[in-house]
Amino acid sequence: MRDLSSDSKLLAINSATVKAWSLEQLIEGCKRAGISAIAPWRDIVQAVGVEKAGKLIRAAGFDVSCLCRGGMFPASDAAGRRAALEDNKRAVDEAAGIGANCLVLIAGGLPKGSKDLGAAHEQVRDGIAALLPYARDAGVPLAIEPLHPMTAADRACVNTMGHANNLCDELGEGLGIALDAYHVWWDPDLAAQIERAGKRIVTYHVCDWLVPTRDLVFDRGMPGDGVIDLKHLRGLVEATGYSGHIDVEIFSTLDWWKRDPDEVLSICLERHRSVV
Amino acid sequence: MRDLSSDSKLLAINSATVKAWSLEQLIEGCKRAGISAIAPWRDIVQAVGVEKAGKLIRAAGFDVSCLCRGGMFPASDAAGRRAALEDNKRAVDEAAGIGANCLVLIAGGLPKGSKDLGAAHEQVRDGIAALLPYARDAGVPLAIEPLHPMTAADRACVNTMGHANNLCDELGEGLGIALDAYHVWWDPDLAAQIERAGKRIVTYHVCDWLVPTRDLVFDRGMPGDGVIDLKHLRGLVEATGYSGHIDVEIFSTLDWWKRDPDEVLSICLERHRSVV
Repeated sequence: MRDLSSDSKLLAINSATVKAWSLEQLIEGCKRAGISAIAPWRDIVQAVGVEKAGKLIRAAGFDVSCLCRGGMFPASDAAGRRAALEDNKRAVDEAAGIGANCLVLIAGGLPKGSKDLGAAHEQVRDGIAALLPYARDAGVPLAIEPLHPMTAADRACVNTMGHANNLCDELGEGLGIALDAYHVWWDPDLAAQIERAGKRIVTYHVCDWLVPTRDLVFDRGMPGDGVIDLKHLRGLVEATGYSGHIDVEIFSTLDWWKRDPDEVLSICLERHRSVV
Repeated sequence: MRDLSSDSKLLAINSATVKAWSLEQLIEGCKRAGISAIAPWRDIVQAVGVEKAGKLIRAAGFDVSCLCRGGMFPASDAAGRRAALEDNKRAVDEAAGIGANCLVLIAGGLPKGSKDLGAAHEQVRDGIAALLPYARDAGVPLAIEPLHPMTAADRACVNTMGHANNLCDELGEGLGIALDAYHVWWDPDLAAQIERAGKRIVTYHVCDWLVPTRDLVFDRGMPGDGVIDLKHLRGLVEATGYSGHIDVEIFSTLDWWKRDPDEVLSICLERHRSVV
């Protein structure tokens, strides 16, 4: 396992963690904190435009561990699925434009009014298959991110590393996995599926599972504040040869989004060194 | 698949669905609604005492699909685990005393302060193994209930049918599975694991997954109000030969627990006939 105790290079800040900040603010804030990698969401990239975003990031000499996020493939009709594909192509272009190491995909849930989970699974597979040639041509690896099963209905119906591995088996070159500790820590099959994933893991995200968790989406914890054995999990990931960044991605209306973003970055860095 | 459209015999009301009621009120309310099976929690059985509870249930001619619930095996020390075992033995006695078809077990989560999920899994296995001889002697089948992964930290670290099946493989005769649609509907491996479970499924519970879900524990929906394809799922369960009751178990501080329990029962019966 890599020694993070005096490391800041491997820490990447996901823009959702400091949601109030623009891309410029994120870059300046990370510079102040001695952090040199980011994982932006599309909103802050689009707000300045892809070209300018790329220039700002290159000028800062920053790494971009991933762009968050594409996906959301299932839709009630063919027009909806085509629209999703077009939007995903734009996301690939954005990822290429800012030099992101990959584009994170979340599956999407059940189309409105549908209870057919099997059909949603097929639409996700077909959507990724349709996007892959475009992403390969652009040189942008795709990374399917299994989300916690509590998001299956409305956000992502790919909820386990096993399912993500099956998709990679089926769809081949150009599709990898975004592994987020928060979403998969509970899985009794996790160690085996991480080993199976091997080099497919192209980005690794951390936050923590709080007890109690007060909201299904917006109550994620700072690493160290919850029950996930993050060092153990990172050990499993790094045993596959993973050599990329560790992204801190925290959705937290109830706590972290209320705080001064500079304070949040400083705590992220401290926890990166001590508990991640 | 069994035809429920004019059926009330296969419907069992879990006492948590009408939480305000005592055992006597539950029995009288079910009689008024034309329902003849219940799945009580231990609190309402203990409130009148097991002996009287058994007499009331037998006098009514009611079936008891299961007793909810034992389990909660992991603890920080050996004394805690011994206390859990003793409490589970009392639960077995209560199940026998009221003629329940099985005792539902939920696993329990991480002991306070622990992040060692693997150790918790072992304590669950060891706890069930220690309880099994007592349950076999009493003639009470145990039924491990996989709970939704969002409960892994604090309620139950057995979260998939695959894990439950593995426990049954390992622990043998006397251990079955309580299958609750709410907890497992999202699992891409569900159909295969239900088929693998076969006769192990000793009790089947329904409610529905609401979108949005506003609370991790207390926002379950009435069957038909959410996104679970309940008829499809019941088809998978009944294809194993399952011939038992279908229990409606709804935790709902935000809606159903605020309503008149007689109204709740009448809607349960209507949904049982139309959407379950």
